[in-house]
Amino acid sequence: MAFLFVLPTWPVDVWTAAMKKVAPDLDVRVWPDGMGNVDDIEYCAAWLPPPGVVKSLPNLKVIMSLGAGVDAILKDPTLPDNIPIVRVNDPDLTGRMTEYIVLHVLMHHRQQRRIDENQKKKVWDSFPTHAAKDLSVGIMGMGVMGTDSALRLRDLGFRVAGWSRGRKEIPGVESFAGEAEFDAFLARTDVLVSLLPATPETDGIINRATIRKLSRKGPFGAPIIINAGRGRQQVADDILAALDAGELHAATLDVFVPEPLPPESPLWTHPRVTVTPHCAADSDPETICAYVAENIRRHRRGERLDNLVDRARGY
Amino acid sequence: MAFLFVLPTWPVDVWTAAMKKVAPDLDVRVWPDGMGNVDDIEYCAAWLPPPGVVKSLPNLKVIMSLGAGVDAILKDPTLPDNIPIVRVNDPDLTGRMTEYIVLHVLMHHRQQRRIDENQKKKVWDSFPTHAAKDLSVGIMGMGVMGTDSALRLRDLGFRVAGWSRGRKEIPGVESFAGEAEFDAFLARTDVLVSLLPATPETDGIINRATIRKLSRKGPFGAPIIINAGRGRQQVADDILAALDAGELHAATLDVFVPEPLPPESPLWTHPRVTVTPHCAADSDPETICAYVAENIRRHRRGERLDNLVDRARGY
Ligand SMILES: NC(=O)c1ccc[n+]([C@@H]2O[C@H](COP(=O)([O-])OP(=O)(O)OC[C@H]3O[C@@H](n4cnc5c(N)ncnc54)[C@H](OP(=O)(O)O)[C@@H]3O)[C@@H](O)[C@H]2O)c1
Ligand SMILES: NC(=O)c1ccc[n+]([C@@H]2O[C@H](COP(=O)([O-])OP(=O)(O)OC[C@H]3O[C@@H](n4cnc5c(N)ncnc54)[C@H](OP(=O)(O)O)[C@@H]3O)[C@@H](O)[C@H]2O)c1
Repeated sequence: MAFLFVLPTWPVDVWTAAMKKVAPDLDVRVWPDGMGNVDDIEYCAAWLPPPGVVKSLPNLKVIMSLGAGVDAILKDPTLPDNIPIVRVNDPDLTGRMTEYIVLHVLMHHRQQRRIDENQKKKVWDSFPTHAAKDLSVGIMGMGVMGTDSALRLRDLGFRVAGWSRGRKEIPGVESFAGEAEFDAFLARTDVLVSLLPATPETDGIINRATIRKLSRKGPFGAPIIINAGRGRQQVADDILAALDAGELHAATLDVFVPEPLPPESPLWTHPRVTVTPHCAADSDPETICAYVAENIRRHRRGERLDNLVDRARGY
Repeated sequence: MAFLFVLPTWPVDVWTAAMKKVAPDLDVRVWPDGMGNVDDIEYCAAWLPPPGVVKSLPNLKVIMSLGAGVDAILKDPTLPDNIPIVRVNDPDLTGRMTEYIVLHVLMHHRQQRRIDENQKKKVWDSFPTHAAKDLSVGIMGMGVMGTDSALRLRDLGFRVAGWSRGRKEIPGVESFAGEAEFDAFLARTDVLVSLLPATPETDGIINRATIRKLSRKGPFGAPIIINAGRGRQQVADDILAALDAGELHAATLDVFVPEPLPPESPLWTHPRVTVTPHCAADSDPETICAYVAENIRRHRRGERLDNLVDRARGY
């Protein structure tokens, strides 16, 4: 039995060293040049695997995504139908995402960019401020990550709501469910956060029409967007146009199409856009390798795998 | 019975309007030109009152600070001994401070300044990151504000400790008490937060010797300082020297001596210093006026006043 890493964009040495540490007995192979006899490979863990790689492994039993999203695995047209896909659901990864969301909601709420500009000009300025209860945060995608972010934002005093396919019962967090409640969710939201998975239904969901449905009653008179889901969810040109038309106050974007964001993208230089390099929740090699190794052990003992992806839903 | 506002640096119109709204029957007077007959004045609320004003009110019964700190009231050498001083302890004010502390801990933890610099250069850079559990935050001053900040930082996963005169029992937050445990507190702290009141004991507490006792084992190899207590607590030249000597990684300062921070201060332009204009926790006029009005009602009914300042302790 062998295990394969497929990591075209990540430092494979770091990941093999981490796996060696947490599972010293595992026969670790590396795509593309250290695969050995592919017949041995029963488990594989991947991030952005090139199309065709999974299909080339005749005895594969489980594919594991090394991040929470599986869109890059699912988009391979040659992906065999019958192999279970496991995604990461780990407190370390979730906690990092929550840090990111809380940080960027607070950056906007506390007008830190304005204070930064004042510091550059050595201006000691006081301006009207508001408390967290005066800002409505709406989170699209109330899964593992959205729920954790919602709890921490709620505890800081923000008015928090979530939108998901199914309704959630989270104390102190309003729940909106499905297409039918999307507009009502947007209408009460000053800061729209996306923690959705990339699926056909969520593609392009952050567009001009969506932005126009957001609340304009918040402290900044125009809404704010934070996308840490996937770049496919945002229509970049619509965001830029809405910013310039005053329909959007500011945006913080961690994800793009394509990534890395090319230097010619106007998002880099727009004064009201914060660009972060898909770093909202980094997969920590040792933590995630321990999760992968545990999944392999469970599967070999015939136990049920958790966090299986539902291919029909796309997440 | 009349009530007096002493607000040399705040917009007195905003505060009188707010008081009119929450206590329409109160006879509100304003220092210096709208005091009327000073014999009427039994209650006064102040922020940075000039020396001598309080003494000039012969029938004053209670002085109320419009912020959490009372150092500016206590430093008046003519302050009568026998008048009780009430300070603000209000969830709105506390919540705003917690927002500030959480924001600035996260800014450092998530290396947002580095990401900002990269954005300016259109650089999509990935660099090693760490989880909140790898960062030790130490809060000096575990009163109303320090405790609330500690809870929210703990919930985000940071290793949190507090230092105060008396020991605290807060689940998941380590407690250090008094001079004897100060060095041990510093030795485990990567990010030092001050939420101390300004007293003779805390003056200059953030100095070169203190900085040298902080942990160097954190993710940045050198510690970080966040001061939202009072400017008197920091020795600005020591902070600058420690930054330049590599003994300090970065500093976020909300409070200064003097305020406003003069344009010639090198703190404004140091690349590793964030200057905010004493805005960590703004007193919201309506919220704080309601608190003041309630205190007046309680006192007139002969009830006990809460949040009395202990003049011997200085806070
Ligand atoms: N930027 C980064 O560094 C980074 C890191 C990690 C993850 N992510 C992104 O974050 C996403 C979420 O991760 P997670 O672990 O929280 O996923 P998850 O637990 O699978 O949650 C997904 C959530 O999205 C909701 N959802 C899916 N399709 C929807 C639709 N069409 N309409 C309304 N709601 C819909 C789901 O609703 P139900 O609950 O009703 O099923 C669920 O609440 C990942 O898929 C990934 O794209 C980004
Ligand atoms: N920057 C801003 O916008 C802003 C806004 C509001 C407040 N503040 C500052 O924040 C301070 C704290 O406010 P708060 O409401 O939390 O005050 P508080 O409830 O009175 O708490 C003060 C804390 O400091 C501790 N302390 C005092 N002297 C000490 C000493 N010598 N050694 C060790 N610990 C000592 C006290 O210890 P014990 O618990 O053992 O008594 C207590 O935990 C205010 O005084 C003010 O300076 C700043």
